[in-house]
Amino acid sequence: MLYDFRSFINPGYYAFGKGSFNHLNELIDRKKSDAQSWSVFMIDDYFKGKELERRLPKSESDLVIWIETTNEPITSLVNRYRDEIIEFNPTLPSVIVGIGGGTTMDYAKATGLMVTNPGDSADYQGLDLIKNEGVYTICIPTVSGTGAEVSMTAVLSGPERKLGIKCDYTIPNEVVFDPELLSTVPAEQRFFTGMDCYIHNVESTTGTWINSLGSAFAEKSSELCLEVFLNTNTPRIESDEKMMVASLLGGNSVTYAQVGVCHALSYGLSHVLGVHHGVGNCVVFNQLEEYYPEGYKQFKLMQEKQQVELPTGLVAGCTEEQLNQMVETSWALEHMWNNAFGADWQNHISKEKIKELLLKM
Amino acid sequence: MLYDFRSFINPGYYAFGKGSFNHLNELIDRKKSDAQSWSVFMIDDYFKGKELERRLPKSESDLVIWIETTNEPITSLVNRYRDEIIEFNPTLPSVIVGIGGGTTMDYAKATGLMVTNPGDSADYQGLDLIKNEGVYTICIPTVSGTGAEVSMTAVLSGPERKLGIKCDYTIPNEVVFDPELLSTVPAEQRFFTGMDCYIHNVESTTGTWINSLGSAFAEKSSELCLEVFLNTNTPRIESDEKMMVASLLGGNSVTYAQVGVCHALSYGLSHVLGVHHGVGNCVVFNQLEEYYPEGYKQFKLMQEKQQVELPTGLVAGCTEEQLNQMVETSWALEHMWNNAFGADWQNHISKEKIKELLLKM
Repeated sequence: MLYDFRSFINPGYYAFGKGSFNHLNELIDRKKSDAQSWSVFMIDDYFKGKELERRLPKSESDLVIWIETTNEPITSLVNRYRDEIIEFNPTLPSVIVGIGGGTTMDYAKATGLMVTNPGDSADYQGLDLIKNEGVYTICIPTVSGTGAEVSMTAVLSGPERKLGIKCDYTIPNEVVFDPELLSTVPAEQRFFTGMDCYIHNVESTTGTWINSLGSAFAEKSSELCLEVFLNTNTPRIESDEKMMVASLLGGNSVTYAQVGVCHALSYGLSHVLGVHHGVGNCVVFNQLEEYYPEGYKQFKLMQEKQQVELPTGLVAGCTEEQLNQMVETSWALEHMWNNAFGADWQNHISKEKIKELLLKM
Repeated sequence: MLYDFRSFINPGYYAFGKGSFNHLNELIDRKKSDAQSWSVFMIDDYFKGKELERRLPKSESDLVIWIETTNEPITSLVNRYRDEIIEFNPTLPSVIVGIGGGTTMDYAKATGLMVTNPGDSADYQGLDLIKNEGVYTICIPTVSGTGAEVSMTAVLSGPERKLGIKCDYTIPNEVVFDPELLSTVPAEQRFFTGMDCYIHNVESTTGTWINSLGSAFAEKSSELCLEVFLNTNTPRIESDEKMMVASLLGGNSVTYAQVGVCHALSYGLSHVLGVHHGVGNCVVFNQLEEYYPEGYKQFKLMQEKQQVELPTGLVAGCTEEQLNQMVETSWALEHMWNNAFGADWQNHISKEKIKELLLKM
């Protein structure tokens, strides 16, 4: 079903392959207009003091912002990063480079927009609310699966809701896919983030908004996820490269289709409890056998092979108010429910059912 | 192997799905800056007097150029179309829409560039020779397989060589994928153009330049080609939609990798004899079992299922001079040979061998 007509924007450029990161300076130089041009590096603070910090093609006039990624991206921090950039140098930077996982890349995407759009980033949560094109943004994933590197959404939690800033300007202008940057990701995080991708594929292919383009992307992406997480004999660098491709394809699939039940519930969970998106998705998906029986089966196989334990009892200690807030956050994600069940989605899911599912988590 | 580092540009926007063509007016309007804005439609003359002509969102200030597609695109006609546009209205059009197969789309891509770059289009055959961004180009395939709708090359035959204009500006700014537009393509043409796509995939996956991204695109694309041409019970609209996706993915695959032996020989054949690219590829591939044994087997299966006869004896009547010209045209396509065999490609193929292969066609 073609829900609403939209011509979807693609990320501007892809640099792909081992060693691509070594060319980051060329990509930045290409965007410099004069000697005063400067860049911002927003980078996961995991890399502080690590080799990657030394490899940043940074000059003295550039700003490095270390991103603390324990929590999901929030609108107040986007505002703060924006202020930091403007205070550092009131002329616009020519490039913002986001180096990290989904959280860091979404911060880079959102901050790049807020430098050229006045006010509070929370006011822009939603579709097509941004007025002005942002700063040229280069995204460089260091863990793969979220699809943030190719998506036109910067997912943010605000004071009122968890909802992305989504518009043509949110898409990264350039993406550097270098599998060598993934080499130090711990097994658990690799699994959780990879499952975000796998779940995108399940939700998009089984949804009502799917078409042949979304299917092709998702099917190939899932095939790669299964290779990565079931064939544990593949050399790490090879499976990291495959996971980068899986994430790209999974992200593209969601562009032409939509996520579903798992993401709707997971947004509720994360918004109230701050659970990391990948972990939240796995915790939720683990309870969704009735909605996604085939996907669930493969998910359990991969989880078993990777020997990853899922957190339990997350919701048990919640107040009634927190629980209701989770339900309301999930319920409000109409486009996800619509994709999962069709226009009559309210006949297929109720707030009671959502609460019942959440209480198992 | 990462041959040369390049960050590859993506097509700007994709509108996908049945009925997308009905929204072409919205896409054109989005690019209009004022009441004087006007558009050029370059459309395969097959559609003259057909329903699609009546469906063009054309105003009185717009220009329609009918493209005669018996022959492959040539530089002199690009120059003529450019002159026609400038004579019609000396202010730049806001949009050029190319509606047709690879020939028409390549004409639209090349003409859009020549409106803003002075001189003879033959002077721009090659890599990164174009200086100025062209007119905003919307490509709309009406037959699928060439990948022209997503590629950064506009393939042209010039007085001296068959070689594409290739640069970041050649990529279409927007692509409308509407499978309904494919409904009238005759079975033979559908096969020949579809095989162009299949051959892209074989050449890219077996080449030395391949990486995981190129493989993922090509593998899924080939899977779709096999579905389209072997499962003849699928409703036409569904298999047309799949073929559109296959073409997109196959085109993307070649971007991150490269074509090989078949395209090198086929360029020679077409340049001298004017054989249509899809037909030429099939005639050549039919002689390449030794280089592509697996791909050859599947190709023959699809040919048999589709009951398509390949032309024979194309080269038999050629003069020695013509034959030598074919060999030289092929031999000059170093990047294709390099992909097929590696940097030492001259140890794997000779002009004699090329001649020997051509004489079988």
